[in-house]
Amino acid sequence: MDTLTAPRHLRLHASDNVVVAVDSFQAGQKIEGVTVADRVPRGHKLASRVIAEGEPVRKFGQIIGSASKLIEPGQWVHEHNLNYSDFVREADAGHAPHGSGLLPLPQRATFEGFRRANGRAGTRNYIGVLTSVNCSASVARFIAEAVRKSGLLDEYPTIDGIIPLVHGGGCAMDTNGEGYEVLKRTQWGYATNPNIGAVLMVGLGCEAFQIGRWKETYNIVENDTFRSLTIQEVGGTRKTMEAGVAAVRDMLPVAANVRRETIPASELMLALQCGGSDGYSGITANPALGAAVDLLVKHGGTAILSETPEIYGAEHLLIERASNPQAVERLQSIIAWWEDYTARNKMEMNNNPSPGNKAGGLTTILEKSLGAVAKSGTSPLEAVYGYAEPVTSHGLVFMDTPGYDPVSATGQVAGGANVLAFTTGRGSAYGCKPTPSIKLATNTPMYNQMIEDMDINCGDILDGVSIEAKGQEIFERVLKVASGAPSKSEQLGYGDAEFVPWQIGATM
Amino acid sequence: MDTLTAPRHLRLHASDNVVVAVDSFQAGQKIEGVTVADRVPRGHKLASRVIAEGEPVRKFGQIIGSASKLIEPGQWVHEHNLNYSDFVREADAGHAPHGSGLLPLPQRATFEGFRRANGRAGTRNYIGVLTSVNCSASVARFIAEAVRKSGLLDEYPTIDGIIPLVHGGGCAMDTNGEGYEVLKRTQWGYATNPNIGAVLMVGLGCEAFQIGRWKETYNIVENDTFRSLTIQEVGGTRKTMEAGVAAVRDMLPVAANVRRETIPASELMLALQCGGSDGYSGITANPALGAAVDLLVKHGGTAILSETPEIYGAEHLLIERASNPQAVERLQSIIAWWEDYTARNKMEMNNNPSPGNKAGGLTTILEKSLGAVAKSGTSPLEAVYGYAEPVTSHGLVFMDTPGYDPVSATGQVAGGANVLAFTTGRGSAYGCKPTPSIKLATNTPMYNQMIEDMDINCGDILDGVSIEAKGQEIFERVLKVASGAPSKSEQLGYGDAEFVPWQIGATM
Ligand SMILES: [Ca+2]
Ligand SMILES: [Ca+2]
Ligand SMILES: [Ca+2]
Ligand SMILES: [Ca+2]
Ligand SMILES: [Ca+2]
Repeated sequence: MDTLTAPRHLRLHASDNVVVAVDSFQAGQKIEGVTVADRVPRGHKLASRVIAEGEPVRKFGQIIGSASKLIEPGQWVHEHNLNYSDFVREADAGHAPHGSGLLPLPQRATFEGFRRANGRAGTRNYIGVLTSVNCSASVARFIAEAVRKSGLLDEYPTIDGIIPLVHGGGCAMDTNGEGYEVLKRTQWGYATNPNIGAVLMVGLGCEAFQIGRWKETYNIVENDTFRSLTIQEVGGTRKTMEAGVAAVRDMLPVAANVRRETIPASELMLALQCGGSDGYSGITANPALGAAVDLLVKHGGTAILSETPEIYGAEHLLIERASNPQAVERLQSIIAWWEDYTARNKMEMNNNPSPGNKAGGLTTILEKSLGAVAKSGTSPLEAVYGYAEPVTSHGLVFMDTPGYDPVSATGQVAGGANVLAFTTGRGSAYGCKPTPSIKLATNTPMYNQMIEDMDINCGDILDGVSIEAKGQEIFERVLKVASGAPSKSEQLGYGDAEFVPWQIGATM
Repeated sequence: MDTLTAPRHLRLHASDNVVVAVDSFQAGQKIEGVTVADRVPRGHKLASRVIAEGEPVRKFGQIIGSASKLIEPGQWVHEHNLNYSDFVREADAGHAPHGSGLLPLPQRATFEGFRRANGRAGTRNYIGVLTSVNCSASVARFIAEAVRKSGLLDEYPTIDGIIPLVHGGGCAMDTNGEGYEVLKRTQWGYATNPNIGAVLMVGLGCEAFQIGRWKETYNIVENDTFRSLTIQEVGGTRKTMEAGVAAVRDMLPVAANVRRETIPASELMLALQCGGSDGYSGITANPALGAAVDLLVKHGGTAILSETPEIYGAEHLLIERASNPQAVERLQSIIAWWEDYTARNKMEMNNNPSPGNKAGGLTTILEKSLGAVAKSGTSPLEAVYGYAEPVTSHGLVFMDTPGYDPVSATGQVAGGANVLAFTTGRGSAYGCKPTPSIKLATNTPMYNQMIEDMDINCGDILDGVSIEAKGQEIFERVLKVASGAPSKSEQLGYGDAEFVPWQIGATM
């Protein structure tokens, strides 16, 4: 802030030629030494330098369009003088440099996690009760409930709990279709997520999603941390409950035989989410999370950006950051798939700023998408994955998911995410098991209103806290939560109703 | 059965010219006085009279195709001599007589139910906690759990319990699309189902499914049996839990102020379901349920047949039974919608007998569909409804739903079903709240295997119990369960995970 009397404003990047009004600007006020020429509503942009006609306008250090006429310092920048369509970008894609800023090993941050037999690292240690179909959902819940009530878990302090992972699908679907593939991958991803120590899978028996075939696909064998049962084979609900509880009882000592140990932050896989965005998302919590991601990537870790519909129309933002042509091709084919998919479903891909977005100060699709993409920071894009595919790269990656929070996060957790950060402006109540979720408020009033649900307030960025400092705070919180400190949504008990595999294709 | 030594067989209707082998027939055996000419596998058909080339073959009292060559009595009837494609049906549709067999009022059966203020009749009295979106699912569960644990319900013996009705949708959807319409109707249907005495609806606040707009659509006002809350407005999870529990506490005395009274069976609305069908479904449990439906319709009640994909290709079975042209048109337009919908989703509508069906003795699509439709009995079709539309006709009606059990039943309960009958061959573990579900086993081995889940064994039809007698048994059980006797799935505690609104359209 310039002075106590100047209205609050934000410079999102040193190279920007605009600043954002936090409070509205009135003509005659001084902002960064520039005299305000027009009234600038809150959330809108003011030119901090002269911008020639045709010259790029920069926000987030990125081009959001070009001036459609000469813009003088102090003028309001919006639809009347900023244009996206004039601006055609020649992407020299797929050759961004690999992360050069990787810290030397001894300087890397660590967390206290669970080292798994396969070398991966967990931040939690749950028993998962997977279900092949909705028809076994109640039995899975009954088993989890019976285990919870039995007191059995009291004997195993290294077990975080038991999660019934129930859903509405699994039958009356095309077993050769992509919806079935997605469900198979999602189940496999949960079964192997490093935050799960042992798995019981419960089916009905006659469903389309056949547990036997699924086990064959992934070479899963029944062992002391994986068991499966079907209600029809065991002989009904009560017997399956008993058999399920017995299976959990058998697996518990094995699953509990772990202890937190020091593990480099490079083993963290952070899922990035936003939901209930507001006008502040793109300028507070998202860039702050982006700064935390840049730190995590420097420390060798992985972050998963998702929500394909929210980058649609501005996908070159990511394509330009791709370190390899495979990632570019994959992202382009995902965009093409969505165009076909939504057309088939009589919907439109449209991420253009809405009238509400424009009133809030977002002028172009690039600017809007940059706000969403800001949570991924500035690192090169190393790989692109399909929904629920196992993520194996380090650094920043993209996973194709819908924007809808529980569906998107379910894909990321299936991909292997062991910690999750979620920015929200309106106030999301999301929480997840087995992956702890850290909720970042974009503004102080909502943070105060929902303080028992929010982990970190990023609204104070509007009051002068730097994005870098907030990024550091988020990074440190990620390490703490990964080490076992409960997030707010964990304290509240979230995660039993948020497993929502992406449903693609017709239910027959 | 003819004699102790004759293999078991079934005559499904007096006018049939085939009988079904329960045990396989060997050449030389005598069945109904006819000498078996060929080996007839179990489940397959034997000609009980001469059938001329081109003459209709009748099973269930219905035409299932025509003889492609002369069939002698005692011959096996299957693909080699029975043809559907030769057979073109000229439907004189839409003019079936209205139910003439309606019993005089004094002879009508009754049940002990709850008379609602709007005149409708409930068979249960639940508190429903509806959710606009997955983002409020956990809070709805927390509220229901807190109410259950509080002991509050102990004071109200006329309350059957509290149900969190959670789901995976409600946001990132096209609010002008049919998926949104379906969700709106489903929620409205549950809110007004006569088995629910009071409703709390919980939302997040920023979701696509706006509770305020939904209330306007249906002229819902907040009153002493309907309350709504959003997490964002109330200020987070814990406060919303407290406010939710307080709202339930307020509504409980009003919702509990009911008493079972004698109500005519004409107020029953029976949802018909089948899931996990086997070779016996079409010859035991389904026709027996059909006989019960015929009784219910005689007593003035309503039965809802559904599962559109299972009648596809043989829809004229229903069209011919329609009592009015509107029903015919609606059914035809539903069939056309499904053809378009599945094509758009790269799937095929195909209800033809599979190789497995054929091996089991089902020769034509008509025969297969008749097995599914058999559970609707023989009454005229009075009306056709879209998914989750309020059912207002009496007699037999059809509601468009997928075949998938939880999704189909959710539509029927939203339509107003206050009791449900579910036939199953493989052994379904389905159960529902607020609508009690009666499970009918098609065969004795499965009944014995899952006896704690099955309400009635229809497998004994294979041992000589008549379909009429079994229909009477089912009808009487429906009356008993409607009067408060718990079904098996209610005893087991099912119904908290089976609310699965039909999801149509893309998740964005
Ligand atoms: Ca594991
Ligand atoms: Ca978002
Ligand atoms: Ca989202
Ligand atoms: Ca069926
Ligand atoms: Ca079904």
